[in-house]
Parts: sequence; C-alpha cells; structure tokens
Amino acid sequence: MGKQEIYSSKEEYEKELEERGVLPEGFKTAVIPFTFFPEERPVEKPLPMRMSLLMLDEPTSVFAAAFTRNKCPGAPVLIGKERLSAEKIRGILVNNKIANVCTETGVEDSLALLKKLAETCSSEANHEEFIPSSTGIIGWKLPVAEMTKNIPALVSSLESGTAVNLARGIMTTDSFPKLRSAKVGDGRIVAVAKGAGMIEPNMATMLSFIMTDIKIERERVREILKRVVEKTYNSISVDGDQSTSDTVVLLSSCKKNSVTEKEFEEALLKMCSELSVDIVRNSEGCGHVIRVSVEGASSYEQARNIGKAVINSPLFKSAVFGNDPNVGRLLSSVGDFTGNNGIELDKDKLEISLGREVVFINGAFQLDQEKEVRLSTYLKERALDSDHKEYPAHNMTVDVEIKLGLPCGNSSAVVFGTDLSYGYVRENADYRS
Amino acid sequence: MGKQEIYSSKEEYEKELEERGVLPEGFKTAVIPFTFFPEERPVEKPLPMRMSLLMLDEPTSVFAAAFTRNKCPGAPVLIGKERLSAEKIRGILVNNKIANVCTETGVEDSLALLKKLAETCSSEANHEEFIPSSTGIIGWKLPVAEMTKNIPALVSSLESGTAVNLARGIMTTDSFPKLRSAKVGDGRIVAVAKGAGMIEPNMATMLSFIMTDIKIERERVREILKRVVEKTYNSISVDGDQSTSDTVVLLSSCKKNSVTEKEFEEALLKMCSELSVDIVRNSEGCGHVIRVSVEGASSYEQARNIGKAVINSPLFKSAVFGNDPNVGRLLSSVGDFTGNNGIELDKDKLEISLGREVVFINGAFQLDQEKEVRLSTYLKERALDSDHKEYPAHNMTVDVEIKLGLPCGNSSAVVFGTDLSYGYVRENADYRS
Repeated sequence: MGKQEIYSSKEEYEKELEERGVLPEGFKTAVIPFTFFPEERPVEKPLPMRMSLLMLDEPTSVFAAAFTRNKCPGAPVLIGKERLSAEKIRGILVNNKIANVCTETGVEDSLALLKKLAETCSSEANHEEFIPSSTGIIGWKLPVAEMTKNIPALVSSLESGTAVNLARGIMTTDSFPKLRSAKVGDGRIVAVAKGAGMIEPNMATMLSFIMTDIKIERERVREILKRVVEKTYNSISVDGDQSTSDTVVLLSSCKKNSVTEKEFEEALLKMCSELSVDIVRNSEGCGHVIRVSVEGASSYEQARNIGKAVINSPLFKSAVFGNDPNVGRLLSSVGDFTGNNGIELDKDKLEISLGREVVFINGAFQLDQEKEVRLSTYLKERALDSDHKEYPAHNMTVDVEIKLGLPCGNSSAVVFGTDLSYGYVRENADYRS
Repeated sequence: MGKQEIYSSKEEYEKELEERGVLPEGFKTAVIPFTFFPEERPVEKPLPMRMSLLMLDEPTSVFAAAFTRNKCPGAPVLIGKERLSAEKIRGILVNNKIANVCTETGVEDSLALLKKLAETCSSEANHEEFIPSSTGIIGWKLPVAEMTKNIPALVSSLESGTAVNLARGIMTTDSFPKLRSAKVGDGRIVAVAKGAGMIEPNMATMLSFIMTDIKIERERVREILKRVVEKTYNSISVDGDQSTSDTVVLLSSCKKNSVTEKEFEEALLKMCSELSVDIVRNSEGCGHVIRVSVEGASSYEQARNIGKAVINSPLFKSAVFGNDPNVGRLLSSVGDFTGNNGIELDKDKLEISLGREVVFINGAFQLDQEKEVRLSTYLKERALDSDHKEYPAHNMTVDVEIKLGLPCGNSSAVVFGTDLSYGYVRENADYRS
C-alpha cells in the first residue's frame, strides 16, 4: 500500500501533484474562498470558508457513493443518500468549516444552496442532480446567505485541467493536499481526499471524491466501490471516532473506453489505498504512521477489528510517540480486545513482531537490552518531524505484525493508524477556530 | 457518587486518610521499598520498587475477587483465579513497577515469592494461602532475587493500625494515595486502590484491596462483590485500555457481628463508587473528571456502553481539556456508537445536556453565543490545575446527561472518565521509567 515516495521540498510535491491532478475528460472544478461570522461563535471574529465545485460537462448516470454509519449524520449525508436513486448527477458542491449537522434548518439550507447552484449552472439543471457535502464544526449553521452570494462566482470560475485546486479547496486541518491518480486503459481515475482527525472506522470526517472517464456500468461500479472502501477508507483509524459527515463519491463521465472489471477494481484499490495512507500520514498531530497487519484470524472483519483495537489503544499510541517500544501494551491491547469479544485466543500460538523483530512468541516476551535499543532506534527513524508541513516528509511506517494462530485462521487484514501526540491534543483542544 | 470534599492542603487530606485508614480488626499491613536493575532495560539505572503485604491474623475462608478479562493476563491473575477455590487465604503480596505478564518464568516467579513468604510467616502457612498481585511494565521479568531477599524484612514490619501505608505502597504513577472506608454495624470496611492510566472497562491496571471485619458468608460476599464491581470499577474509563493485571480482592476477618446483606452491599457500593472516582480524578494527566449519565436505554449494559463511547472519544475528551464546549462531538460519539452497533436511535427523541444546559433536543442543536460562553466558563471552573499533586484539588465533575428515549428505554447508567491532556500523552510517551 503506497510507494516509497520521499519529497525533499514542497515544490517537488507540488510538481508531483500537478502530474497526478490532470482531470479525466468531461470534468471541471472550481474553488472560492470567503469569510463569514458564525451565529454561534462567542467572539466576533470572521471565519474563512471555501466552497468547492466538481462538475461534469454532461450529467451522468454512472455514480456511486458510500456514507458514514453515524446515527446522527449531517444534512448533506441525508440528502446524498437520497441522491443514490437519482437518474443522473451533474456535480458535487463541497464546503469546509461547518459540517451542517443537526441544526434546525440543515436540510433546507443545503437544498437552498443546490437550488441556487442549479439555477446558476443552466436552465435545464435541477437541484436533484447535485450532491452536497460539508465538513467542519458539528452543530453550527451554514452561512447560507454568504454561500449563496458566492455561488455565481464559483460557477463562472469552473475550469477543466487540474484537480489540484479541488484537493486544496476541501482541506480543513489537513496540512497538505491529498490527490492520487491512476491510468487505466486509455482513461484516468483521479481522486482527492480530506480528513485529518476523527478518522475511523467508516471514513470518519473524511471526504473523498473520485472522478473517472472510463466507461463502466452503474451497478458494477457501485459493487466495486463498496469492496474497495472496506479495504481502504474503512481500514484506517486515527482516533476511533466516526464522524457525522464521511462521504465518498465516485462519478464517471464515461468518455473513454471501458476496461475489464478486474483492471478497474485493481487500479481503484491501489489508488484509494494510497490516498488512505496519505490521510493517516497527514492526520492531526501525526508523529508516526503505524501499519498493523493481522494474520491467522477466522474472518477478515475479525482481523481488521483486532488491528483497529491495537491502532486505537491510547497507551500503545503514546508509547510510539515517545519512541518507546513498549510492546507490553501491544500484547495488552490484543488480549483486551479478544478477552472482551469472546475470541478464544491461545497465547502460546500468538506471535507479535515490531519492525520485523519477533517480540512475543510461544506464550512469552522475547526482550533484551539490545533489542530494546534496536526497536527504539527503529521508532526514532520513523518519526515524522513537524518541519514538513506542506508535504509528506517520508513514506515510512512503523510495522506491527500479529499472527493470531486461531483455529481455521486463514484471514488477514492490514490497518493503518497513528501515534498519539501532543499535537493531536493541541489541535483538538483549541476552541473551534 | 462521592462527597463534595475539597482539601485545601496535603496535610488536610492526610489527616482525612488517617481517619479513613483505621484497619478493621484482624488485619496487618507492611510495605518495603528497594531498588533493582531490570534485565531488559537498555540503560543501567536502578528502578525503585515497593512490595506491600496485607495479612490476616488468622486465615479466612471468606474472600472474593474479580479479575481482568484480558486474554493475556499476568501470572498473578492466573494464580489469583486458581486461589478462588482455595479453602482459606492468609494474605496478599503486592508489588508495583513490573506486572509479571507473559514472561517465560512468570508463574514460577510468583510462586517462588509466595513460598518464601509462607516459610517466613509461619511453619503452618502454605503458599496456596496467599494471593500475588503485580502492576507495572508488561513483558519484563520480576526481580525475584531482590524481592526474595526483602521478604523477611517485609514480614517483620507488619503492623496493625492503619491502611495508609498500604495505600501508598501500591501506587505507581498515582500522585496521591486512594483510600476509602465505611462503618457498618459495629465493624468497618476499608479499601485501598491504585490505578492511573489504562482504566477501563473491567478495572484495567487497577488494583483494589478491600478489608472488612464484618462477619459474612463466602458465597454471599462473592455475589455482592460481583454486582458492586459492575457498577463501580467497571463503570470508569480513562483510556479504553483494559490491562493484563486488574484485580479486586475482598477479605473478611469475620471478627465483628454480621449486618443485613442490604446494609453491607450499600456500604460497599458507596465506598467503591468513591474509590472509583478517586481513581479517575488521579488518572494520568487528568484535567477534568467527566460524569456521563445515560437514561432511556433498553438495558443497563447498553446505557453503560453508550456512556463509555462518549467518555472514550478522543475528540470530545480533547475539547473538554481545552475548555471548549464542543457538543457536536458529543452528539457525534453517540451517533457513531449507536450507528455501528445496530441501535435504533431516533434523534428526534434524543436529549443531551452539558452542565445542566440542554444543548440538543427535538433533533437539533440549541446553541447561541451566550450559551457557548456559559458552557466554556463551566468547563474552566471544573479544570484541575496541576498544582495539587498530592491530594485531590476538588471533587467537581463535568456533567453530561444523555436521554436516549429508546422504545422500552427504562435503563440508565452513570460512567466516569477524564479529558485527554498533554499530561496523559507525556506520562505515556516517556520511556518506561
């Protein structure tokens, strides 16, 4: 999952983004920044917001989406779910800063914006051909008046060419834009994503928009997206919190020849895998990216859940942040999850490695002074220093391997997460800003 | 749960502890400190350890215990579980610093210490009459030689009178000793506890030893302890990590008259409730104690699990640390848990309050600038400043009330937890020290 890219400068990363960002045929994007005064904010200080627009030249019937399982989803998610049965979709209107969740006028606010957008785009356009998407503060109201005022300028700035502006436009606390692409047949798949904290299980506070010009059937692409999301966006976790707003939407303009289903799925899986790790690497305060592979489970879901239990253990995460190879906490989190979920783990068959060094086997830890020093060095080498704010510093991961050795344990899973740092607390303790 | 004690000085708290700490009849305690060099530690620096001993004047058949559900428990937990079927128990040998979990010689190490203890105590004593209990680093070996050497001095320093030394002896990263007591009939119940981080669900890295002189039947006290543990030690959570070593043991010398079962259970429940909140208040880096009450659930377990989901949400916890009343994250964590656990929450019937102010009702947030200011002030007033290291600064909690309004929702639960602070990360990122 992910190439070993190392960018030595912001310029180098931006050059790479320009190459990746070439839009598939039939797509345009636009972004507009402005400021507003939230009603609920105790201090009279303007907040900056960006609206982003992703548009097809012609409406398409080929689209697919996946949404959060949170029981209190935002108005855009409620509307988006309805749109799944629409005949055609023209585009997606995205805003950051306020997530439009459970306010008294949430649904009507989103619909008012889509109506204005449809009017502005074309006399034939209908607001039901647009999907809304919002991320940011939960509980506050969208600044509908300011947003409405900015829609004409947004529409008139639509351009084909690159998705880089869109990748930047949807950012919130992300420090660098996230964009990946793949060439398949004679077409392309391009995807952008935002997501910083609150990433887990099912795409929490994560937005990802995927565009392709490859011809494919609507039902086919919906099945493929579902499978891919499970193995990518649903296999990362920054803090175990699943947001009210997570959304993945895929649109195809069908302008290029089709490829085999396998080719399409493999390309999409690879691309979404890379993007998922980008999200983790750029999550709030991330000091190390941790990759946990779990083998010997009795189902994929079980393997993934055990991996997530490890990756969500605040104690293990804090130790990694401090470059302390406290593998006792690794074992403890595996034992905690299995013990509290009725999984008959036999610790004599369990094997745990950190950085390819076996630390637990045959029911006992295998630790000595030299190994502790090696593992601590291993963690230090993988630390992400905070000087690299505008591009990923490196692509290294802290690798944890867990072989469960369960009876009939033929299933495995890989999950990605982060350490727990001062930076995470700082970002999330600040007053909503 | 808990009185509104406010201690203005360490001396005042210590005076209170002396009053609480008067041992029930028939008990003695001792503590011995020493240093050792762990085999596994990369730097050659001595670690301080304390062994503590809790002894009955005569072996008793009236004892009960509860242990962690972690699937990789420490050797002392394995031995302790076997001891439940023993005829009589004489005492408990406790050490801090190393938890004796999953080392190659873990069980034999603990047994060797108990054998030495039995020999030292009396020619009639048998090592099976003692329960071992260890807390600290997972994966490292007990310094059996140094511990053995110190056992005679430990036994010869046994004294009746107070449990305060025991409360201090079992501390690890705790900053103040935790001890509670109750008078019942003509006898007493006295309990000590340790536990800082890693507190959840089922008494993670938490040790609590409860002594009473009230006469009671063995089977009766086992049932009572089970019920009390569910509502107290199993209803607190600092970080969602359940340790490999959690242990609660209750011993009765049966020296005083019996009371009714109801009287005993009520006294024990109150005392363990107070001790549970003490543990949370003194947890690693705690900046606020959060009390979540959940009503209108369809079972006690469901109510407790929803409360724990809120109290374990890193996003909500970080916001509380920053005195930011980010109630959006409160709703999000309720929606996340219910959505991912198949609970049919109707958000129009949901009601959420913070500090007795309703923030969510009839499907929508009720927020304005004045309320945000009031709630932020409410959080600031409840912050625990770090000047009070040796005694609890105050007894205030941040109160969250969640009324679920589920069909047949007659069940409720109260859980306690903490915010997520720099201090938590700092304590847990430091190399095992």
